[in-house]
Amino acid sequence: MQTASGGTGQPPRRRTDARRNRERILQAAQTAFADPGADVSMAEIARRSGVGSATLYRNFATRRDLLEALMAEEVDAVCAAASASVSGSPGRRFEAWLGRVFQFVTAKRPVAVELLEHVDRTSPVFKDSRARITAAGKPLLLAAQESGDVRSGLSLDQILDMIVAIAKIPGGPDYVQPILRAALVGLSRPGQ
Amino acid sequence: MQTASGGTGQPPRRRTDARRNRERILQAAQTAFADPGADVSMAEIARRSGVGSATLYRNFATRRDLLEALMAEEVDAVCAAASASVSGSPGRRFEAWLGRVFQFVTAKRPVAVELLEHVDRTSPVFKDSRARITAAGKPLLLAAQESGDVRSGLSLDQILDMIVAIAKIPGGPDYVQPILRAALVGLSRPGQ
Repeated sequence: MQTASGGTGQPPRRRTDARRNRERILQAAQTAFADPGADVSMAEIARRSGVGSATLYRNFATRRDLLEALMAEEVDAVCAAASASVSGSPGRRFEAWLGRVFQFVTAKRPVAVELLEHVDRTSPVFKDSRARITAAGKPLLLAAQESGDVRSGLSLDQILDMIVAIAKIPGGPDYVQPILRAALVGLSRPGQ
Repeated sequence: MQTASGGTGQPPRRRTDARRNRERILQAAQTAFADPGADVSMAEIARRSGVGSATLYRNFATRRDLLEALMAEEVDAVCAAASASVSGSPGRRFEAWLGRVFQFVTAKRPVAVELLEHVDRTSPVFKDSRARITAAGKPLLLAAQESGDVRSGLSLDQILDMIVAIAKIPGGPDYVQPILRAALVGLSRPGQ
């Protein structure tokens, strides 16, 4: 979970400003990273978010801090989507959430790739992300398997690995999305 | 297609011996590569195949030649499997062949990884393999789509990319095979 930066001794107005700045920086960084070929230097992120470079560095002392916060924000959003009330059968809810996971894997790639220059693959940033996403999705899978919407015999880890593998296939959305759809249909059919 | 090594001026007996030696070497190399942690030096491959090191190097002047021949042999086998007469519906035949492709991707990995030390990913060795496999599988996919066994709207390239992506998921067969099965079931359902 995110905590607003800034000392607790600040007056409420300044705390609100600090939180808003942090959010603006993360939002600007997310947009910049999602744009292939965009300049994602700290200076450009300060410019895009409209904060001074001092404010940027007060919030994120290093580029790695910013990358980790970005990753944590996106994982938060994926976890929140698991408990958001969505209409439809348990199978539809699980499938919608897997679509969200797919989008996360696709979108986070540039952040993850750069983060790997600072930490290795076994770093808690990655391990915790996976563990949090698995914990959030487990109730959805259980409900979908209990209702018979999703085949039994596959664990959430296996299903997530399948989603991640498909998300890594090179090609634009027109090429990869139909592959994802076919795989999701396979989950909804009972095993032989 | 493979051509037997050895000059055309040799008497038949020597040509047969030469072909047999080449096959023994390739067979021994394939077995060695399939065994994780096995010694796959040229000396060990000569020892396993029971030929002298001079014979080994007459057949494969460099390690790269051996690796390329191994890859070509395995691609030949995948292509041959596409036209082998298998009983069952067009859908079953296509599915059985995709299972063969999956096995090929899994088995060829150590060879491909080492080959990448000699050539790059855009080398004809890899491009030709993919083109040959696609050409061999296309009639199977067309038949399976015409019979309604396999959903339309996915190209063979998309399906092969899905198989390759799943084959690359880390984990033993007990972990990865059920993922493959689920994905294959998804192919057999008409698209929404």
